[in-house]
Amino acid sequence: MANDAVGRQPKYQHIAAELKDAIASGEYGPGARLPGESDLMSRYGVARMTARQAFGVLQAQGLVEARKGAGVFVREYQVVIRRRGIQRLAVEVWGAGGAIWDVDGKGRAPVVEFLSVTEERPSGAVAAALGLADRAPVVVRRRRYLLDGKPVMLATSYLDAALVAGTAVAEPDSGPGGIYARLAELGHGPRRFREEIRSRMPGPEETARLGLAAGTPVVLVCRTAYTAEGTPVEVNEMVLDSSAYVLEYAFDAP
Amino acid sequence: MANDAVGRQPKYQHIAAELKDAIASGEYGPGARLPGESDLMSRYGVARMTARQAFGVLQAQGLVEARKGAGVFVREYQVVIRRRGIQRLAVEVWGAGGAIWDVDGKGRAPVVEFLSVTEERPSGAVAAALGLADRAPVVVRRRRYLLDGKPVMLATSYLDAALVAGTAVAEPDSGPGGIYARLAELGHGPRRFREEIRSRMPGPEETARLGLAAGTPVVLVCRTAYTAEGTPVEVNEMVLDSSAYVLEYAFDAP
Repeated sequence: MANDAVGRQPKYQHIAAELKDAIASGEYGPGARLPGESDLMSRYGVARMTARQAFGVLQAQGLVEARKGAGVFVREYQVVIRRRGIQRLAVEVWGAGGAIWDVDGKGRAPVVEFLSVTEERPSGAVAAALGLADRAPVVVRRRRYLLDGKPVMLATSYLDAALVAGTAVAEPDSGPGGIYARLAELGHGPRRFREEIRSRMPGPEETARLGLAAGTPVVLVCRTAYTAEGTPVEVNEMVLDSSAYVLEYAFDAP
Repeated sequence: MANDAVGRQPKYQHIAAELKDAIASGEYGPGARLPGESDLMSRYGVARMTARQAFGVLQAQGLVEARKGAGVFVREYQVVIRRRGIQRLAVEVWGAGGAIWDVDGKGRAPVVEFLSVTEERPSGAVAAALGLADRAPVVVRRRRYLLDGKPVMLATSYLDAALVAGTAVAEPDSGPGGIYARLAELGHGPRRFREEIRSRMPGPEETARLGLAAGTPVVLVCRTAYTAEGTPVEVNEMVLDSSAYVLEYAFDAP
C-alpha cells in the first residue's frame, strides 16, 4: 500500500512522510534540527519550493517549528502531562489536602498561576449546567497552568455565588485541598463528575495566552462536579495545549 | 475587557470576532451563508482583503467553509455524536448482542463500514500494549464510521493472532455483540478499559479519508481492553473528526 501510493503522491508529501517517519522513529528527537532546504533539494533532487512545501506540511501538523534564520526544529513540546481523568478526582487526594495535579505527571505537575476570582453573571450554558434560574450570579475562578514556565492550560471554574460567596472558595487562596475540600466542609462535597471533551483550533486570544505553535489545536475539557445527591456544584471549563497533554480514563466495564 | 481590546485588535480580527459571536448566538445557524465580502466592506468600511482575512480566521478555526462561487457558510458539522466513554462499554450492551454505538447518539448512531481484516506484524507500540514478545503477528480489523454518509471516524483494532486467528474475531462479520462478545466466548471477555485521548492536526491521508474541512483537528482515542485478570486483549486506535464528536466520561469519585 505505502509503496503503491508513492507514485501518485506529490513529491513534497512523500518527503514530508519520510521526515515524519524519521521523527516518529526518534532519528530526529524533540528539539532536533531537521535537514535544511538545500539538503532536501540535493537528497531528493527537488526545487527549493518543494522542500519548503514539505516543511509546511509538518508545520501544519504541529510536528515542527521554523525558527527564523536557524532552520526547522522538531517541536520540544511532545506530550508530557498525563492527566488521569478518574483517579485524580479521588476523595483521598483532595480530602487529604493534596492538589489533584499531584497524581498526574510523575513529578511533572504543572504550576498553578492564580489569575482572578470575580463575581459575574454566567452564560446561559453555565447557568443551565449549574441549574441556576435567571442567570443568578456565579463566583468565577480563573487560573493558568504552567509547566517549566510554558502555559499549558487555562481553567475557569464557575460556582453558585449563593453557595460560596464570602467563603474560602471565593478567596484567591482556597487553602489545602482546594475548592473541593472547601465545598465538602460546606456540606457540598463533589462525589460524581462528568467530563466532556472536544477539540478545535484555537482563537487568537487562546493562541496568545497559551503560547501555542502554529498548527496546534486546543482540547476543551468541561467538567461538571455533582454532590452525591446529584446537585451540580461546579463547572470547570479547561482549554488545554493539545501538544502538552494526553488524557487518560481507566475504568471497569460498568 | 472586550471593549478595551477592540482598539488594539486588527480590524479583521474584530470582524471575525463579531461573526463568531453571531454564529455562537445562532443568528447564523449550521449551513447558513455568512454576509459576503462586499457586505462586510460596506458595513465595516474596510478593504476587500480585510474582509477576506476575517473569513480566513473563521476558516482556520474550522467554523466556516468557503464554497467556490457561492460564499462562506457556517459548517454543518457541529458536534452531533456524543460518545459516552464508560457507559457504552457496559457488558450488558455487547453481552446482549448490541453494538456499543447504540448508547451513544440518541438515534444518531454512525454506520460501520467494514474495510478489512488482515494478519500483520504490529508496530512496536501495539506489540508492547498487547504484551506480545518479538512483535508476534496480530489480527487487524479496520473500519470506518459514517454518519449520514459523512465519514466521522477511522478505527483499527489489533488482537493477538495466537488468540483469535481462525475464530469469528478474524471474520469480516464478527457476529452479534461484535468482537467483545466473541472474546468473552473464548474466555477472554474484556472487563477493564483504558482510553488515552490526544488531539493534533490530521495528516493528508486522514484529511482525505475523513473528508475533513480545513482547520479541523482530529481526536485520537487509543483504547486498550483488558480481561478481569488484567491481560490486554485488544488495542483499538481511533481517529475522530473533532467537529463531529463530543466525548463524555461520567464517573463517581474513586
